[in-house]
Amino acid sequence: MERKEIPKAVLHRLPVYLSYLKSLPADAPEHISATALANALGMGQVQVRKDLAMVSDGGRPKVGYERAVLAEDIARFLGYDNTNDAVLIGAGKLGCALLGYTGFAEYGLNIAAAFDVAVSAERTECGKPVYPMQMLEQFCRREKILMGIITVPAAVAQQVCDDLIACGVKAIWNFAPTHLDVPQGILVQNENMATSLAVLSKHLSAQMMGY
Amino acid sequence: MERKEIPKAVLHRLPVYLSYLKSLPADAPEHISATALANALGMGQVQVRKDLAMVSDGGRPKVGYERAVLAEDIARFLGYDNTNDAVLIGAGKLGCALLGYTGFAEYGLNIAAAFDVAVSAERTECGKPVYPMQMLEQFCRREKILMGIITVPAAVAQQVCDDLIACGVKAIWNFAPTHLDVPQGILVQNENMATSLAVLSKHLSAQMMGY
Repeated sequence: MERKEIPKAVLHRLPVYLSYLKSLPADAPEHISATALANALGMGQVQVRKDLAMVSDGGRPKVGYERAVLAEDIARFLGYDNTNDAVLIGAGKLGCALLGYTGFAEYGLNIAAAFDVAVSAERTECGKPVYPMQMLEQFCRREKILMGIITVPAAVAQQVCDDLIACGVKAIWNFAPTHLDVPQGILVQNENMATSLAVLSKHLSAQMMGY
Repeated sequence: MERKEIPKAVLHRLPVYLSYLKSLPADAPEHISATALANALGMGQVQVRKDLAMVSDGGRPKVGYERAVLAEDIARFLGYDNTNDAVLIGAGKLGCALLGYTGFAEYGLNIAAAFDVAVSAERTECGKPVYPMQMLEQFCRREKILMGIITVPAAVAQQVCDDLIACGVKAIWNFAPTHLDVPQGILVQNENMATSLAVLSKHLSAQMMGY
């Protein structure tokens, strides 16, 4: 089988197209062209055309794409139609926030359960079960969990990451503001809110200093 | 005044150093070298040394940096010591999650209030006031708010973004999975969870197909 690498930049743009398509009212025109999409999003026409051609063969000259079909094609390409079950480690403030966030279902993510060192017996948080850490391995093996979400403090994130990998997890969504070492074949996606805040506050202080 | 651009890559690494320094136990050695920091984080020595030299002049040959002073210097550089007040628009699931997240204080962010179209009279959510949208401008002007956090659906995010800019906001933290058009001088930092999920689920489907 030929290995086909999808450029990361494309993976960053596709959810934006999908989100725009989904945001259109039901009575919007049935077809949309790459040009119209590019204009609406303030992006380059050539880029949008190439991106869409990579995920859908439904584009017709002068007509464009059938809107609903294009949205489906993008969602399928991104894997949103295959629900991924995930476990979340660290049921603190941020962890509970994510547990209670219903928006993930739209992107094919289901947080099956949370685990926390401070929990000694199963309890429910935001409608999801929270288990003691000792039950992690058994749960992951039984449910064939491939994705782990880390919302523990930075100091213990590497240990939790190692535990998840030992339980068979292949993809890690890391909210702890720290670098994680992982073996080959494991993907870490960092959601570093501290970094975002650094970028924003740096911009504001530059503004206030009159740069 | 000379304009000094901080490379974005440095802004991405500094919070990682800071987080590591803060995670060390109180009885850890008082000094730390760039080399020790680089090794602990699995990063390049030369890069770490250059980054630290950019934010702190406390490094001494053979001794390294005084740990507490280095942490302070990084925090000051990142603007974490100057609290930024922000408003949050969209008190849905994700918005409320962020309102209730106490971890932001550590990074100098205080969400002063939230605003929502569905709110007609002030109410409290996660310990923070939530106001009707009509009160946004008055609040932002009075409190001199420079940062806005967008947690509304993608379809209305641009409108909310325009409203925030009209109220004097200069930096926008965008959680809506959509592209925002802004005039020069306004910074948008996108926190696109949909993108992260796309990257993760693409990795998992590639794994399962045996790539």
